[in-house]
Amino acid sequence: MSADSTRLGVWLIGARGSISTCVAYGLAGLRAGLLEPTGIATEREPFRRLGLCAFEDMVLGGHEIATGDLSRSAGELVRHGILSGELVAAASTEAAALDARIRPGVLDVADVGRAELDSRAASLGGVSPRERTERLSEDIRAFREEHRLARVVVVYLASVEPWLEDRPHFADLARFERALDQEGVFPASSLYAYAAFQAGAAFVNFTPNRGSSLNALRQLAREKKLPHCGNDGKTGETLLKTVLAPMFAARALKVLAWQGYNMLGNKDGEALADPLRAESKLRNKDAPLRAILDDDGLHTHVSIDFVPSLHDWKTAWDFVHFEGFLGAKMSLQLTWSGSDSALAAPLVLDLVRWCDLALRTGESGELAHTACYFKAPLAGGTHDFHAQFARLLAYAERNLR
Amino acid sequence: MSADSTRLGVWLIGARGSISTCVAYGLAGLRAGLLEPTGIATEREPFRRLGLCAFEDMVLGGHEIATGDLSRSAGELVRHGILSGELVAAASTEAAALDARIRPGVLDVADVGRAELDSRAASLGGVSPRERTERLSEDIRAFREEHRLARVVVVYLASVEPWLEDRPHFADLARFERALDQEGVFPASSLYAYAAFQAGAAFVNFTPNRGSSLNALRQLAREKKLPHCGNDGKTGETLLKTVLAPMFAARALKVLAWQGYNMLGNKDGEALADPLRAESKLRNKDAPLRAILDDDGLHTHVSIDFVPSLHDWKTAWDFVHFEGFLGAKMSLQLTWSGSDSALAAPLVLDLVRWCDLALRTGESGELAHTACYFKAPLAGGTHDFHAQFARLLAYAERNLR
Amino acid sequence: MSADSTRLGVWLIGARGSISTCVAYGLAGLRAGLLEPTGIATEREPFRRLGLCAFEDMVLGGHEIATGDLSRSAGELVRHGILSGELVAAASTEAAALDARIRPGVLDVADVGRAELDSRAASLGGVSPRERTERLSEDIRAFREEHRLARVVVVYLASVEPWLEDRPHFADLARFERALDQEGVFPASSLYAYAAFQAGAAFVNFTPNRGSSLNALRQLAREKKLPHCGNDGKTGETLLKTVLAPMFAARALKVLAWQGYNMLGNKDGEALADPLRAESKLRNKDAPLRAILDDDGLHTHVSIDFVPSLHDWKTAWDFVHFEGFLGAKMSLQLTWSGSDSALAAPLVLDLVRWCDLALRTGESGELAHTACYFKAPLAGGTHDFHAQFARLLAYAERNLR
Amino acid sequence: MSADSTRLGVWLIGARGSISTCVAYGLAGLRAGLLEPTGIATEREPFRRLGLCAFEDMVLGGHEIATGDLSRSAGELVRHGILSGELVAAASTEAAALDARIRPGVLDVADVGRAELDSRAASLGGVSPRERTERLSEDIRAFREEHRLARVVVVYLASVEPWLEDRPHFADLARFERALDQEGVFPASSLYAYAAFQAGAAFVNFTPNRGSSLNALRQLAREKKLPHCGNDGKTGETLLKTVLAPMFAARALKVLAWQGYNMLGNKDGEALADPLRAESKLRNKDAPLRAILDDDGLHTHVSIDFVPSLHDWKTAWDFVHFEGFLGAKMSLQLTWSGSDSALAAPLVLDLVRWCDLALRTGESGELAHTACYFKAPLAGGTHDFHAQFARLLAYAERNLR
Repeated sequence: MSADSTRLGVWLIGARGSISTCVAYGLAGLRAGLLEPTGIATEREPFRRLGLCAFEDMVLGGHEIATGDLSRSAGELVRHGILSGELVAAASTEAAALDARIRPGVLDVADVGRAELDSRAASLGGVSPRERTERLSEDIRAFREEHRLARVVVVYLASVEPWLEDRPHFADLARFERALDQEGVFPASSLYAYAAFQAGAAFVNFTPNRGSSLNALRQLAREKKLPHCGNDGKTGETLLKTVLAPMFAARALKVLAWQGYNMLGNKDGEALADPLRAESKLRNKDAPLRAILDDDGLHTHVSIDFVPSLHDWKTAWDFVHFEGFLGAKMSLQLTWSGSDSALAAPLVLDLVRWCDLALRTGESGELAHTACYFKAPLAGGTHDFHAQFARLLAYAERNLR
Repeated sequence: MSADSTRLGVWLIGARGSISTCVAYGLAGLRAGLLEPTGIATEREPFRRLGLCAFEDMVLGGHEIATGDLSRSAGELVRHGILSGELVAAASTEAAALDARIRPGVLDVADVGRAELDSRAASLGGVSPRERTERLSEDIRAFREEHRLARVVVVYLASVEPWLEDRPHFADLARFERALDQEGVFPASSLYAYAAFQAGAAFVNFTPNRGSSLNALRQLAREKKLPHCGNDGKTGETLLKTVLAPMFAARALKVLAWQGYNMLGNKDGEALADPLRAESKLRNKDAPLRAILDDDGLHTHVSIDFVPSLHDWKTAWDFVHFEGFLGAKMSLQLTWSGSDSALAAPLVLDLVRWCDLALRTGESGELAHTACYFKAPLAGGTHDFHAQFARLLAYAERNLR
Repeated sequence: MSADSTRLGVWLIGARGSISTCVAYGLAGLRAGLLEPTGIATEREPFRRLGLCAFEDMVLGGHEIATGDLSRSAGELVRHGILSGELVAAASTEAAALDARIRPGVLDVADVGRAELDSRAASLGGVSPRERTERLSEDIRAFREEHRLARVVVVYLASVEPWLEDRPHFADLARFERALDQEGVFPASSLYAYAAFQAGAAFVNFTPNRGSSLNALRQLAREKKLPHCGNDGKTGETLLKTVLAPMFAARALKVLAWQGYNMLGNKDGEALADPLRAESKLRNKDAPLRAILDDDGLHTHVSIDFVPSLHDWKTAWDFVHFEGFLGAKMSLQLTWSGSDSALAAPLVLDLVRWCDLALRTGESGELAHTACYFKAPLAGGTHDFHAQFARLLAYAERNLR
Repeated sequence: MSADSTRLGVWLIGARGSISTCVAYGLAGLRAGLLEPTGIATEREPFRRLGLCAFEDMVLGGHEIATGDLSRSAGELVRHGILSGELVAAASTEAAALDARIRPGVLDVADVGRAELDSRAASLGGVSPRERTERLSEDIRAFREEHRLARVVVVYLASVEPWLEDRPHFADLARFERALDQEGVFPASSLYAYAAFQAGAAFVNFTPNRGSSLNALRQLAREKKLPHCGNDGKTGETLLKTVLAPMFAARALKVLAWQGYNMLGNKDGEALADPLRAESKLRNKDAPLRAILDDDGLHTHVSIDFVPSLHDWKTAWDFVHFEGFLGAKMSLQLTWSGSDSALAAPLVLDLVRWCDLALRTGESGELAHTACYFKAPLAGGTHDFHAQFARLLAYAERNLR
């Protein structure tokens, strides 16, 4: 039976995490008319005129390594004031259907020994990297066939991995392929990216993990003519930095110090309490400042602390010390308080739509026009948010003509 | 004796106020190599390649209605940590020379009865508007001749005036001219603008006062082929608003409330404690938000309180309440703490340079490319700071070709 | 049938407002073991050893002028994240029982014309003050008899009234009595206090309204040997002020300015958007600072703005500018973000218990030991919170002996 | 020649550091009537009636390990807006006289290799601990004789030392004495305390260093009948914590998390960038919270970051997450911005006076009534600031009778 050309598969890695849960219930709420599309830029002018994939045409599925079910994740988000009880009740059927489509994922080295692991995911630890990617690809292909999907976008939303130093097989596709067979060391995120490409899917890396950013995988995407984008969703404090730092530059004000203190209490925060995992994240949160501002004499700091009582409510305090004319020292303080998952979920929906458009129009490789969504855009370029957004607008205008 | 084509006159209205004092000592410090040009965008790339007027070529003069001398204003700024004692000592000769060039200004209705008024300024109250503007013009012409200046830019930096409702003679130059002879009611700022144009000078209105924004005066500027710009320097809290609000719009986040609380202790703060004067100011501080954000359901507030102990150190707290996906309510708080005068002075130097460039290249009317410097740009257009700044960059690029 | 000596009636004026709703559902939750007694000081050492009234022994009733029912108030508090849906479901029977015990109250002049008024309350507007108090008293007496209550405490929780200037009949009980018969002008809160005392109940005024603070009513309380306390619950920003200001005094630091900006979105906030009502409130929020700190040269400001989207989540920003040794100027900023009703409700339960203890031990008049609960304690005395709390501890120690 | 019974020697360890510089110029300014005694509690009622040592009767001297002179330290404080240029000019003679009285100190292990060390201090590194203490004692004795001082108080204000684990000779005076002869390991601060006691002086430890807190030295103070107090001046963020935490306890609010982020740019901040030194400090900044609040489930964090541009302007952000009734989660944020040295100097003057009073009245051992000045009071007791201050008031009342 041929695929329905309008139906888009959205395959979530980390399918029962907070962001995926918000995506799933949010999508259900949008379809049922229970929610406004707040936070979804592609619902606004001029993007809405692009004919992007409708919410009704998205089908969700995904990989997950933990046990549990979506209603448990949702219950926690209700308790912390992110999802409403009404929405969760209304979407219970859709949630159960998604739960049934979730397949066991593969563990990263750092996940071994975690509590509440799905035993089927754990058992994949025993097989070779090659076999693991084949199992993952197979799940994605089966999902496409079963639901007669025209296209699939894989979105990587799993926990932050410890940073892995570069290896020769990261840089070259031929070596990568050989290492797959020879039990080489891989970030789990890159195995997922490889599997996605092998299954003919687009890939979005919403985390600071390596994902598809390895040169070997950039090469594979080009060969397969598939689009991908990432890394690390720009949801809160870093978004503010890339909005505000250009103002200091434009006004020729000298930033002396930019201190950023982040607090988070969800699983992401817990993972980041591990210094090895934090390294991946902090690197992306600091680099944009140094790229936008005059680096000379600039003092920066960024930390993320685990504060369990905050749960998903990321709270960040930034202190900017700057010098103006006559050597006068001034300051700007910011306190940001937002639900990390509710901020991330609409960006995921936007990115799925941009990947789908690229799949339809035959664009491949790193989608440079998506830079405004990421802390460390795969295609590089400026970190200035408004310049990035102007680029997305220009891309849209071209596609509207 | 013919004018030296490189020498530029900078005529400051409110010449012993905090901003003028910072301009005067700052300019002296820049010339003497005692100061870095922090805060002066025209010293940065790409603007520095435009061949704008050098600091060495600027000659200061101005009008003032209060008695006193610059060293007294400077002493106060030293006490509050804005000017350094060393700079004030090093610039004492230049300051005395400027003091000698300051001429008595004309009073606005609201100034009558103020303490420490220059009796010569007060005596001008008795003469007709026409005669007042002639005296002001004559002062500017004499300044040009005495110092053999090629061009003059008048910068209006006096106190906020109470808001005057529109009158028929504001809207039409012929009526304006007749009213000048018939003792019509005028904002003092508009008399200064008229005098500046009559003397062949460019006009910058750094305040929320009417200045050259009356249609009658826009007409006069066009007839005389003179450039002008304004209104109301965008130095701090409003600058932040026009940088941040576009981010909320770009991310499709729904701003529910934007509350802005400003505190100020200098003469400007004292003047704004008068509700009639505050009206002019608050109007400009609130409008940009409503222009950038979705107005529907948006609650805004902006107030300025006089807190004497803060002196020139403007402290503002903004609270932004917004809704994200799933109806999650989030917030951003900002505390801005900066010296208002040290923030304004470098913008004045930039604007003087842009007006000088316009005089040299024959541009006239409202200088639309200067919008990023103002809360209520004379030529209208977007309030989005980054869009405004992109326009200035484009203007510079055109002039570099 | 004789009253049960352990049963205490708690009669709430404003019985369907946010605070009352939190009291009602909170009490139900405490009894059912669904809630911790967080925020209830009388549940902690040493107070818990005093044998104060158990939650199980409290029976709720009250007056209300608006239509609606408790479950509607509760629904709104669930939507804003103050009550949990589980608690509201679990307490539905108790809530319905309370709803059935709520009687129509009397309108204040300022309430006339409000939407959603109970027509029975409105009809009381047509009868004389004397008759109104008799109806109110009768309701309280009927409540006591029907539920065989040993004692009743009336707690005034209605909206802030516009400030009424002093009248001769406020100051003297005999004149007060005569004015009741002659259609004199009265704050509604004082009519309730009069009615409570006539019914032999204790009276707690949790609002800035006049309530029982009129000399005439203080006289009545003494004659009837009844205890009362008030005014204006010290729940948030003012609590912080009276905790922090003594620190500045103890350290001999000179406070130059204390600016307090409050934002609120519930009915209380809406009422306070009316300047006449706000006057009552702001007076109590500013006075404590001037009592604790050296008044000389102290600049203070306090405002309350209505920000609908915040609903019950009071957000306050305080800026304290102070001078230290060597004339160094320093600052402290505070941002308080709390649910006003969830902060108030446990204080109501504490105060009910203190009044009950006073009724049992025969204490009457203003309960000076309750000062730490109020912005403007009825018995006067220091505003220093720690000194007030030390007094409550000393009172408890005396009662434990 | 006999000592003048009114003259008090104040011997500062770290005599050219920021705090000592503020003490020296501040004292000169107070004597000359150029400064108000802001920040000096002993100048206020009721303490001023105690007949404490007059500023005129204090003679300063001290130890220092760095080269340089006071005017250089003062110049830096002028540049950062803490001292005024006028005061520094007016006090130049007194400052030079103090400079002449400063003697080379002894190095701590961690100081070896620091830049700008006084070579005479460095040379003391080669001699035995016993000889070092003798040299220090001799300096103090010579100071007393030369200036005919009735009493001497030694105030320890040097840099934070790395934390030294307990050794047997810390706990017992006899062992301590033996170790002095046998090249044992000692914190430099404890050698100073030993030397002070041997010279018959009182000792104030304003730092988190071990100082006189070792049991061996407590024993020595008792034997010599000398008073001492410490540790770690409570100047800013910790002061706030001990003022606010009791409020949460009194209101039965459950503190879930208290996160404290400190930034500092002076030498103290630089020293604390060394994790070994920071340990001493952070221990004292966190303990008070755990002592005041219910420890169960309390999450705390405290860090100090070096931000050079802030210099002496300590900026701290505290985030307090707490739970109220009904499980509602609320927050309090604080931003403290103060000059650390200008906050510390007046406390030093107070403590000198309290030690002097103790010397005169024959009190010895740990001065428990000074607890409100310290983060880790030598005599233990509550950390609640208001309770501590009440104790100081009670002490004063006893001495006034």
